[in-house]
Amino acid sequence: MSFAEQTAVRPAGADTYETTIWEGWDIGSVANGGYVLCLIVRAMLDAVDKPDPISVNAHFERPGHAGPAIIKIDRGREGRTLSTVSAVLYQNEKEVIRATGTFADLDAMEGPTLIRAEMPQIAPIEACLATRHQPDQGQFYPPPFTGRFAIAHDPERAGFATGEPHGQPEMGGWIGLLDDEPIDAVALTLFADAFPPTIFNTNLPIGWAPTVELTVHYRQRAASSSLITTYETDYIFGGMFSGDVEIWDPEAGLLVEARQIALLPKTT
Amino acid sequence: MSFAEQTAVRPAGADTYETTIWEGWDIGSVANGGYVLCLIVRAMLDAVDKPDPISVNAHFERPGHAGPAIIKIDRGREGRTLSTVSAVLYQNEKEVIRATGTFADLDAMEGPTLIRAEMPQIAPIEACLATRHQPDQGQFYPPPFTGRFAIAHDPERAGFATGEPHGQPEMGGWIGLLDDEPIDAVALTLFADAFPPTIFNTNLPIGWAPTVELTVHYRQRAASSSLITTYETDYIFGGMFSGDVEIWDPEAGLLVEARQIALLPKTT
Repeated sequence: MSFAEQTAVRPAGADTYETTIWEGWDIGSVANGGYVLCLIVRAMLDAVDKPDPISVNAHFERPGHAGPAIIKIDRGREGRTLSTVSAVLYQNEKEVIRATGTFADLDAMEGPTLIRAEMPQIAPIEACLATRHQPDQGQFYPPPFTGRFAIAHDPERAGFATGEPHGQPEMGGWIGLLDDEPIDAVALTLFADAFPPTIFNTNLPIGWAPTVELTVHYRQRAASSSLITTYETDYIFGGMFSGDVEIWDPEAGLLVEARQIALLPKTT
Repeated sequence: MSFAEQTAVRPAGADTYETTIWEGWDIGSVANGGYVLCLIVRAMLDAVDKPDPISVNAHFERPGHAGPAIIKIDRGREGRTLSTVSAVLYQNEKEVIRATGTFADLDAMEGPTLIRAEMPQIAPIEACLATRHQPDQGQFYPPPFTGRFAIAHDPERAGFATGEPHGQPEMGGWIGLLDDEPIDAVALTLFADAFPPTIFNTNLPIGWAPTVELTVHYRQRAASSSLITTYETDYIFGGMFSGDVEIWDPEAGLLVEARQIALLPKTT
């Protein structure tokens, strides 16, 4: 099944969509938050009068689980250049995620360009550690959802995978969809929350690290089918940690800046 | 009038607050977006069962103007550790800002601490360029709202003020409230959008740069009455620019990381 099919939404009345959280996107028994947000962004893109997200923010209220879900849209201003729309995804009539996005038409956006961020230094994809869940690998590592897209870890930041974390809360590598499926803004949303928690490369306990809030800034559309991603933490504090994601297209340059707050895994 | 008074909200029925966008917070004829968001955060803090914001996101739909406003609260999950709440601020029955926040009790948050960000190098406050609007200075520079709080620019990044921008989209300096009024989370929200647009220090046109979306992460409460702030742009692209704010307490360390997308001023 394609990524597009796994993130499909079906209109079901006024400003309402039915969707499915597909099996196989799990980390333990919980669906990856970035994937569940993809369903919302797909619905927003159907509902709003602009083709491209500029900024999407999500607050994660409860874990999502494989099964049916409902998305309700709350329309904001539809302006000439920018439109705002909110949405809530429900399972069993309980809120799972609240999101708000601003949308535009990137083809119509004009102005000078200055990029001060620098393309991260990541090993060539052939030298990276491809990580893909296999059906016989159980629920934990690599988690099932890594079977749903392509991810390869920079060996300099992949110590967590061999039990030898390098001590800094950072991850990085290459990411794409399976079978070279084209990367749209919904896939970029997935990639903004697809790397393992940065803190797996420190000496902190490893476990489920639920995202509390995620904001994704989309700057341009992807041109390549495999993208460079880094995920780094500025602070760990009070049981929470920040995570900054950059997604770079080797051809087109910087595509996404995203930032999240997540909870540290519970000490077992 | 104190900052607390200028950001007061009054309950006005179920999950509804009345408030006032006070005069004197303007840039041109438009109220500073960070200040208008303060009114929403004040209402959220009254409505929610937790004392501290962790993360507040706002999408700015229309300019706010001095005068009355209504805030409507939409409650999300109230959990044991975290609670989510959304709010919309209306003027003349039109949406001005949509916001969603996650709240917690910082006193109850526990865990290890790691800060990888570094305190910015800013000149001592005595060496900085205090900028305060005076009643006879008209609407533009310094804008009236700089009369409502204390801001002093690092001379290394204050070239915009003398018509000699240093060429990089960055600002920095000290910020606080007037009369040493204690800095609460609402004031931190103001400070996350209080410095002039970074692009004033480039050679791009200067003018009103409306914020599209702002996310503020609050990590701890302020201990000092004057805080170090930097505001830097990673990219300018398609008529928009990003802005990353850090707010540091010289005693307590990193307080806030915030990021916004804003529109470049229109070319005149």
